[in-house]
Amino acid sequence: MKQAIELAVQNVKTANGGPFGALVVQDGTPIASGTNLVTVTNDPTAHAEIVAIRSACQRLETFQLAGCELYTSCEPCPMCLSAIYWARPDRFYYAASRADAAAAGFDDAFIYDQVALHPERRAIDSHRVSLEGDDLRPFEEWISSLRKIPY
Amino acid sequence: MKQAIELAVQNVKTANGGPFGALVVQDGTPIASGTNLVTVTNDPTAHAEIVAIRSACQRLETFQLAGCELYTSCEPCPMCLSAIYWARPDRFYYAASRADAAAAGFDDAFIYDQVALHPERRAIDSHRVSLEGDDLRPFEEWISSLRKIPY
Repeated sequence: MKQAIELAVQNVKTANGGPFGALVVQDGTPIASGTNLVTVTNDPTAHAEIVAIRSACQRLETFQLAGCELYTSCEPCPMCLSAIYWARPDRFYYAASRADAAAAGFDDAFIYDQVALHPERRAIDSHRVSLEGDDLRPFEEWISSLRKIPY
Repeated sequence: MKQAIELAVQNVKTANGGPFGALVVQDGTPIASGTNLVTVTNDPTAHAEIVAIRSACQRLETFQLAGCELYTSCEPCPMCLSAIYWARPDRFYYAASRADAAAAGFDDAFIYDQVALHPERRAIDSHRVSLEGDDLRPFEEWISSLRKIPY
């Protein structure tokens, strides 16, 4: 955890991005790290955890992190928490909380609240556009596909 | 929306990944598209919306999508919904629902439920590891940084 926090501090010192760092560890050995690279790469999804997960998956040549653990300097935002669910490491550890992040001006706690709301009550407008017979075509194609790789 | 659905169908036919497609539109013109590339790129975060958002940001050389709209063949999972909050397009449209995705075997609805839970009640183990004086060092560095770019 000390290392994840140090990555976060250095990321700010080098002006690479936000104050966040993360590590993926397998059998006690760090196999990938990440820091927040949103502004330097023009990628709003380049949070420390996402960068670390992507890097670990490249290294292990897999899209699943079973047997791994994630260490992150701050409680993951809902994007990163959900990415953890999709990548499925065994567990994760964090130091600062979403309230600490909010106090420093980050939207994590706000987005947690938004995700839990009914779509109609959220701050970003969304609309369901149903194209009748078309909506389910992708899923029908998926279910009948013989070449699919479930994830 | 027809185009987003067609991208999703084709993505399955070409065995590139899951049955999902998305487009970012600016002033009525599509500027970027994405399909689910999780298995083909070994990237658990490569959902259609994330791929489209990243591509649009590269094209516009920005980390914010104000003035843009997103069309996606299916209601975004919490990872993609949160990515939308971080990228801040004006609004988004979707065709199929999270229940439709669940019926085809995808975890979207499950992850929505998980994100809303108290960390201790979630299916993936997580632990806060407080390093006392160290936890807030990244944020202190951020707040005092003169070179930071807020996002």
